[in-house]
Amino acid sequence: MANTITKIRTGIIGGAGYTGGEMIRILLNHPHVEIAFVHSRSNAGNPLHSVHTDLLGETDLAFTADISSDIDVLFLCLGHGEARKFLEASTIAPAVKIIDLSQDFRLGESLPGREFVYGLPELQRDKVAAAQNIANPGCFATAIQLGLLPLAQAGLLQEVHTTGITGSTGAGQSLQATTHFTWRANNVSTYKVLTHQHLKEIRRSLQLLQPSFTGNVNFVPVRGDYPRGIWITSYLESDLSLEQALQLYQTYYAPHPFTHVSEKQIHLKQVVNTNKCLVQLEKTGSKLVIHSIEDNLLKGASGQAVQNMNIMCGLDETAGLKLKSIVF
Amino acid sequence: MANTITKIRTGIIGGAGYTGGEMIRILLNHPHVEIAFVHSRSNAGNPLHSVHTDLLGETDLAFTADISSDIDVLFLCLGHGEARKFLEASTIAPAVKIIDLSQDFRLGESLPGREFVYGLPELQRDKVAAAQNIANPGCFATAIQLGLLPLAQAGLLQEVHTTGITGSTGAGQSLQATTHFTWRANNVSTYKVLTHQHLKEIRRSLQLLQPSFTGNVNFVPVRGDYPRGIWITSYLESDLSLEQALQLYQTYYAPHPFTHVSEKQIHLKQVVNTNKCLVQLEKTGSKLVIHSIEDNLLKGASGQAVQNMNIMCGLDETAGLKLKSIVF
Amino acid sequence: MANTITKIRTGIIGGAGYTGGEMIRILLNHPHVEIAFVHSRSNAGNPLHSVHTDLLGETDLAFTADISSDIDVLFLCLGHGEARKFLEASTIAPAVKIIDLSQDFRLGESLPGREFVYGLPELQRDKVAAAQNIANPGCFATAIQLGLLPLAQAGLLQEVHTTGITGSTGAGQSLQATTHFTWRANNVSTYKVLTHQHLKEIRRSLQLLQPSFTGNVNFVPVRGDYPRGIWITSYLESDLSLEQALQLYQTYYAPHPFTHVSEKQIHLKQVVNTNKCLVQLEKTGSKLVIHSIEDNLLKGASGQAVQNMNIMCGLDETAGLKLKSIVF
Amino acid sequence: MANTITKIRTGIIGGAGYTGGEMIRILLNHPHVEIAFVHSRSNAGNPLHSVHTDLLGETDLAFTADISSDIDVLFLCLGHGEARKFLEASTIAPAVKIIDLSQDFRLGESLPGREFVYGLPELQRDKVAAAQNIANPGCFATAIQLGLLPLAQAGLLQEVHTTGITGSTGAGQSLQATTHFTWRANNVSTYKVLTHQHLKEIRRSLQLLQPSFTGNVNFVPVRGDYPRGIWITSYLESDLSLEQALQLYQTYYAPHPFTHVSEKQIHLKQVVNTNKCLVQLEKTGSKLVIHSIEDNLLKGASGQAVQNMNIMCGLDETAGLKLKSIVF
Repeated sequence: MANTITKIRTGIIGGAGYTGGEMIRILLNHPHVEIAFVHSRSNAGNPLHSVHTDLLGETDLAFTADISSDIDVLFLCLGHGEARKFLEASTIAPAVKIIDLSQDFRLGESLPGREFVYGLPELQRDKVAAAQNIANPGCFATAIQLGLLPLAQAGLLQEVHTTGITGSTGAGQSLQATTHFTWRANNVSTYKVLTHQHLKEIRRSLQLLQPSFTGNVNFVPVRGDYPRGIWITSYLESDLSLEQALQLYQTYYAPHPFTHVSEKQIHLKQVVNTNKCLVQLEKTGSKLVIHSIEDNLLKGASGQAVQNMNIMCGLDETAGLKLKSIVF
Repeated sequence: MANTITKIRTGIIGGAGYTGGEMIRILLNHPHVEIAFVHSRSNAGNPLHSVHTDLLGETDLAFTADISSDIDVLFLCLGHGEARKFLEASTIAPAVKIIDLSQDFRLGESLPGREFVYGLPELQRDKVAAAQNIANPGCFATAIQLGLLPLAQAGLLQEVHTTGITGSTGAGQSLQATTHFTWRANNVSTYKVLTHQHLKEIRRSLQLLQPSFTGNVNFVPVRGDYPRGIWITSYLESDLSLEQALQLYQTYYAPHPFTHVSEKQIHLKQVVNTNKCLVQLEKTGSKLVIHSIEDNLLKGASGQAVQNMNIMCGLDETAGLKLKSIVF
Repeated sequence: MANTITKIRTGIIGGAGYTGGEMIRILLNHPHVEIAFVHSRSNAGNPLHSVHTDLLGETDLAFTADISSDIDVLFLCLGHGEARKFLEASTIAPAVKIIDLSQDFRLGESLPGREFVYGLPELQRDKVAAAQNIANPGCFATAIQLGLLPLAQAGLLQEVHTTGITGSTGAGQSLQATTHFTWRANNVSTYKVLTHQHLKEIRRSLQLLQPSFTGNVNFVPVRGDYPRGIWITSYLESDLSLEQALQLYQTYYAPHPFTHVSEKQIHLKQVVNTNKCLVQLEKTGSKLVIHSIEDNLLKGASGQAVQNMNIMCGLDETAGLKLKSIVF
Repeated sequence: MANTITKIRTGIIGGAGYTGGEMIRILLNHPHVEIAFVHSRSNAGNPLHSVHTDLLGETDLAFTADISSDIDVLFLCLGHGEARKFLEASTIAPAVKIIDLSQDFRLGESLPGREFVYGLPELQRDKVAAAQNIANPGCFATAIQLGLLPLAQAGLLQEVHTTGITGSTGAGQSLQATTHFTWRANNVSTYKVLTHQHLKEIRRSLQLLQPSFTGNVNFVPVRGDYPRGIWITSYLESDLSLEQALQLYQTYYAPHPFTHVSEKQIHLKQVVNTNKCLVQLEKTGSKLVIHSIEDNLLKGASGQAVQNMNIMCGLDETAGLKLKSIVF
């Protein structure tokens, strides 16, 4: 147990959004971390619980418009494009580790003096451990990759067909037609079919493990009528038997505390409000079917960011992330 | 069966909103009605199904910015305050019957040459039949009154305690924090507790039947996490036995085709997507409990407006309103 | 308009289930039909509204354990396997037309004296019109086929990849772990991935139109957390441009009153509680994407059964099926 | 911080149900507790995650049919009536503290050698601290009392009118018509109106604080269409101004770490998946309105049981109970 003088000091930029709120919720109860500041220009001076109303009674911290340099880790919980702008306009001490939740640095982009490592621990934990800056993966990208990494490492990937269903929190706080309750309740729709922007970072990771992979990940993203969680079903041609595939996946994920292979049929609420990913395999004829599930705001965003911080700072990878599932 | 030369010609003002859409849906299939025009300035020229996308394949009608006088009935599906403004600024031929869904004329307000009758058929069908202009009741007001009218007519009302739960369509199309899917899903909250604006029209109707009634209707309005339907539970002190109360209610509602007394426990989805109201009674100790349910957009708005039109025009009260329940 | 002496007399077997209930709801308001009896052994003698509680106030009909022969059409709303057993054990007059909603006769099975025609009007309306007995298609099968028929007729089908999401009513009334509210709310899961039983009837129809089709329909069925409706997204390699594909589909569906091609993005609630199917096309690279949606209990079951009856009996195909959408 | 040799050893009876599962989830991450056994006859030998599937990857513990006496605290997560039967049939060492989640001992019932203290810390934390056995309050009872205790202590209670809405988990795992997804989704209904069994324990507590209170708590329980959480709105006549009432409540709850007074409007998801209760006050005319919310399985059941254990064992009252809210 860390004692207080060694607590890691963290700052959060963009603390009023969904991923910023989740970051606060996790860090407030993280045994080795303190929150130095939560930045939000529009809410500066107001208590955190004025925006994240569930925090009433848990903290008296307020949002601030100031950014202190006296921190160890800075989390950027900004919209896509905003993270780069923020870093270009700010002077962050070089010693501060940066974990960026946007997509601005996921494809190898960099800034002067700052290289970013793609922060998927199940792909490259060692690089994360050595990184100074992290590009935190996308939510769909995380779940899809966790379903495919063991195959890519074994050089067994072929053309993949993927269905993904996401909760409404994936669309953020903005009020739009498709986030209106009356519209979305009991509804289904798709968007960006076969063209989702996460496909680039997915392909990049898969080719890192299997350079020969030139097939597509054909991805159908679906808007689910629930707030939290991502369900992925991928299938592809495979010579592996179910037993061989299970063996491959179990071996691959054995060293990873948050990703588990289920031998029983899975359902989304097994992981909602946790940092876990569950993977389940089926074999039908010549096709291998892989289901993978996560909470889009946790393993798909803020939880994974904290997991990366834990690894970068030499803490137990699971510190602060043993979260009670909602289950129901 | 009316033949085409006698079809009632109707116009709809404010056709792009929720109640306007329901009006269109009902009138398109009404056997004795034709839609002369659907007015919406912001959507003029676009097909109805560009806004009400479920109408694709059912009609090629388009919104218009023009208002024809060659109609028999005009439905005003405008926001509160907008109906009065519209009528003051427009020249509607005196022969045109007006049915206003706003609250602008529910408390006895009038315009030069236009008196409005409160359009609750179960309260005063004869006055509706003779009316030239109708103030269509509020959604909560309809459901609460249908739970209390028989008692008021019998002079038996006392202080009433009422819980009401409404679907999100009651809040209209506007995007607000409390209509955001992520917020509202699985959530509960209240608003305007003991001060809801419908209490005035409720009191007015009840005192019409029981002038001595000076008690309150203490009303707790709740935001439900579903799109359609209103649930009301009211209770009050009563000397009536359950049998006497059932007799009173069954007698009162016998001539009314849409309001029925259930002797079994009711649940909201019995009436969703219909123009019906179901009422159920319980007696516990000295208290009489009355449950009453409706679809807020139908019996609570557009369906009742068509019911009023049917009565005003001498049609079968149920014409065009035999709607299939969603049930599930 | 038929007058009463020519009304078609119908009987319903298995009237206490979901599809039986929908059948009753449609037929009660069908202008050319009367319900002669609704059979249910376990509920015999009880009013229909004792089971289908939304029918309170709409009919005083009761379930019966007797089967009259004095009918024109008999609907079998029984479980899979039960329809065959019922027909083998019963003596139904040869003149009675039978429409079976189970899967017992969808693959060409027959009974002595009774051949069954697969009742998908958009596939073979003429055969339906001439049929004495109908095997009503499965819910998923209907929606998937309506997304693929124009391609099959044009001989352009190749290996297809299909995601399908179904409401909970698809699982019927039985109480099971996966139909428990606490489990299913906000949840996602899959079942029978790549092995769903409807694949057989789908392949049969497609090969009828395109005998050369030997590819697979790779189908991922998903349990949705809402009661009604099926969403299908299929994609396949295609040389057609979007315009060509639209032209093909619009031409194919022009004579069919319930299936429409949308040029805008569709969402499920456009068709819930109606007998319609909407189809939408997208082209991405070399892939053609086809979305198709329906209400699983209506176009996917009882609504289509009535549509078949209308065709078989020479009525307007849409009689009794102009149902108000729930929309919200 | 306790070190491992002093960890409190706990056993759970009825570990396969909803409250048993929540107990396991909390205790697995409780810093000062170890789970000695989880008893379930029907699941003996199976891993906990075979029933509580979200626990996959978190524990390899299995259910057992044996009951060890080598424990400090025993949690009874059994149905009403079953706890008494279990204790009468078992030999539990007298030194073992018992926390019973059923209603069997909430009204002062006892067993030879075992007196039970009503375990509502906000009512009587000192008695809880000194107790050997705890009758853990009901879920509705907890939320209603937390809305009324400060008034009762001040002797200001009068006739109360209360609406309560509960998630489906309140009805447990059993498959019934009213827990079927298809039925409950988007639905509302009530049950045990004015007669709910929790009224007895509520009255008992209130009279403990205000012996003169002879009024009723008129309680309308509503089935909500979501899994977790209880919403309570109570109102009563009161001479207090809003400021006075706020002062009274804030003073009362100041020493209690889980119950907080909100000066802003509250909504249910502020507390879902936490052990918190939020209370909000409004004053309208002469009526004081009190909203109080909780998670029925946590503050309304297993969370409160652990809170009681913490108090009984001299631990920090919040140990193991700083749970991340689901928020969305």
